[in-house]
Amino acid sequence: MGTRPGRGTANRGGGRAGTRLRRGGVAMAGGGPRRCRRLEADAARAVLGAADTLLFDCDGVLWRGEAAVGGAAAALGRLAAAGKRLCYVTNNSSRTRAAYTEKLRRLGFPPAEPRHVFGSAYCAARYLRQALPLGAAAYVLGSPALAAELEAVGVPHLGPGPAALPGPAPADWAQAPLDPAVRAVLVGFDEHFSYAKLCQALRYLLRGGPDCLLVGTNRDHRLPLEGGTAIPGTGCLVKAVETAAQREAFIVGKPNRFRYQQFNIGLPSSPTVQRNSSSSALMPFSSTQTLETPCLYSNNRAYCLSVLPEY
Amino acid sequence: MGTRPGRGTANRGGGRAGTRLRRGGVAMAGGGPRRCRRLEADAARAVLGAADTLLFDCDGVLWRGEAAVGGAAAALGRLAAAGKRLCYVTNNSSRTRAAYTEKLRRLGFPPAEPRHVFGSAYCAARYLRQALPLGAAAYVLGSPALAAELEAVGVPHLGPGPAALPGPAPADWAQAPLDPAVRAVLVGFDEHFSYAKLCQALRYLLRGGPDCLLVGTNRDHRLPLEGGTAIPGTGCLVKAVETAAQREAFIVGKPNRFRYQQFNIGLPSSPTVQRNSSSSALMPFSSTQTLETPCLYSNNRAYCLSVLPEY
Repeated sequence: MGTRPGRGTANRGGGRAGTRLRRGGVAMAGGGPRRCRRLEADAARAVLGAADTLLFDCDGVLWRGEAAVGGAAAALGRLAAAGKRLCYVTNNSSRTRAAYTEKLRRLGFPPAEPRHVFGSAYCAARYLRQALPLGAAAYVLGSPALAAELEAVGVPHLGPGPAALPGPAPADWAQAPLDPAVRAVLVGFDEHFSYAKLCQALRYLLRGGPDCLLVGTNRDHRLPLEGGTAIPGTGCLVKAVETAAQREAFIVGKPNRFRYQQFNIGLPSSPTVQRNSSSSALMPFSSTQTLETPCLYSNNRAYCLSVLPEY
Repeated sequence: MGTRPGRGTANRGGGRAGTRLRRGGVAMAGGGPRRCRRLEADAARAVLGAADTLLFDCDGVLWRGEAAVGGAAAALGRLAAAGKRLCYVTNNSSRTRAAYTEKLRRLGFPPAEPRHVFGSAYCAARYLRQALPLGAAAYVLGSPALAAELEAVGVPHLGPGPAALPGPAPADWAQAPLDPAVRAVLVGFDEHFSYAKLCQALRYLLRGGPDCLLVGTNRDHRLPLEGGTAIPGTGCLVKAVETAAQREAFIVGKPNRFRYQQFNIGLPSSPTVQRNSSSSALMPFSSTQTLETPCLYSNNRAYCLSVLPEY
């Protein structure tokens, strides 16, 4: 599917060696755009020197839970002092941009403003504001933060919070009121996800047909927690709605390019990136949907960045 | 995936014409095993005359909601009077076999016994009784009927009914107690399906690894209702759990062969059925996951059976 990792995204075999290439003195990931390899000190400095903006993944890369990854805050402090613009990218749709800037401050990272944070809740709200006709509303399977980002851009919404089935029998469920303004179903992380909400989402999608958008914040299938355990991610909820509706959702989060096109900070926006194109933005990310290795992306090339500590 | 409709299952184009073949005087579905075509009167009598057992789908084929399909009860009455053994097959995991026999009686169908009803709840219970070690339990996303069928075959279980997350934060959710006896996660239709239950299902599957079975009653993605509307089917819930666990569930319901192998009524059990093999069982079914046309299956060949009324 179009939203799966493709060109320019790291696979899970982050440590697999490929052919070592050189371009402009920078050690590059070899073996195609889906591989990445570690940048050692000199090469990392060369890569960083060429960048004026750095995009950082957050959960599991800069911090784990409420603890900053050792050395990460100091590393970012040095980068900020060197004049780099630092931005933050996350698939987590449960926090607003303001909550992220507050967390960065609390954990000792360089000061950030909400406009430097690109969370999937914010990106989904931006997308819907562009895609929906004026006054059209979104039925939301998601968090209060997702609702807040929709409010901030002026997209009416309903849905967040617990929901109960409106009666004992399927015939009752299929007769619950539908808001006539709803023209989109938006699926983010929702701890209150339930059959009742799935049912209502399907009913909006069936009523609207192709005129009702189906949007997901991301496809992460699990959220890893401390101690090696995990909880289900938004991708599970997106898949349940997609299965009911027999439609594919448009995903705004990583690795979809919609978010990057919003940054307007020099990232190429065409789907196919030329190997010899230049970029002024680099993105230290965890490898897709895992927390195995911090990675650095540049021009659809993935690097492992040794200036961030391993964990 | 192995549980998708494959050889011997009807596709949605139930009315599409194929090459007409003849074998033993019987008009057969042509154009490959995934097509079916209507059996007119003479051919239908020939097919029925060769069968001693008839397997009927129920919801949408014999009845719609609480109303028998016009003529269906009379047709089955004639078949029973002609000495045919009538059996009933359903993917609905929300009713016990006893509930189905009672419904058959209530709607005027020939008398049936629970042993003539092969619901996906019963088949799942039978499967788990065979597959689980003695004393091992199942964590169930499903109905009281599914729980009752597990009890009837002696499989301990937990899970049916509403569930709440055990605290406000993901760290709390990942520390809820797990029953040490659980060695299977069983997913059926569950109107109380929730993120809390999805989370617990994933935790059992992560704890047990390949030693924890993942079983689904069926993959029906929607349950059609009167008036052209629909509600999400069990397939949506199965897909959510599969996405979280990154594993494929074993499906006991149609079109999986496990159920048919249980019947022991002459159906071939090998995955590949020879075209010239014989069978004494015929199955009037709705086409897979739709209610378009009553179909008759025989030896991996699908027929539309005109002795049942169109609707």
